[in-house]
Amino acid sequence: MFSFLTRQRKPSSAQTAKERLQILLAHERSSGAKSPDFLPLLQRDILEVVRRHMDIDSDAVDIKLERSDDLSSLEINIELPSVKVEKARTL
Amino acid sequence: MFSFLTRQRKPSSAQTAKERLQILLAHERSSGAKSPDFLPLLQRDILEVVRRHMDIDSDAVDIKLERSDDLSSLEINIELPSVKVEKARTL
Repeated sequence: MFSFLTRQRKPSSAQTAKERLQILLAHERSSGAKSPDFLPLLQRDILEVVRRHMDIDSDAVDIKLERSDDLSSLEINIELPSVKVEKARTL
Repeated sequence: MFSFLTRQRKPSSAQTAKERLQILLAHERSSGAKSPDFLPLLQRDILEVVRRHMDIDSDAVDIKLERSDDLSSLEINIELPSVKVEKARTL
């Protein structure tokens, strides 16, 4: 299902601190439907939502959009350098 | 990648009007990382964001969360009865 589930996941020491978030969006239109593609709008809003929960460097976001007549899919891969956990903060 | 990409997609006439949105989220923690699982929080916020763009019946949302030591994944499947398109409205 997720491409990286099937990869060898033996991180080197340099990668050990990295965490990743992958977001996949797919919009399947019924045949012949002329509804617009709203995934790019969702992408913007979802990234905004993710930023509420953690620090994201814009360089760390990789986005791929694919379109066909009745399916649009959007893949967002984010490297997470540090996780911002509001509830667990000691402040 | 997406399970429904590989399915036979020949909708019956009753299904023709249906559209679907699938959102998959995966959070891969580095081995041994103790960072918390924030996907349930993201789930709530992402659904709120999706509702800004379209009408969603709460019955039409199907959510699956899976967790292991270093990977959490969340699958949100939404049936879209009608697409709300703000920019294309004639009002």
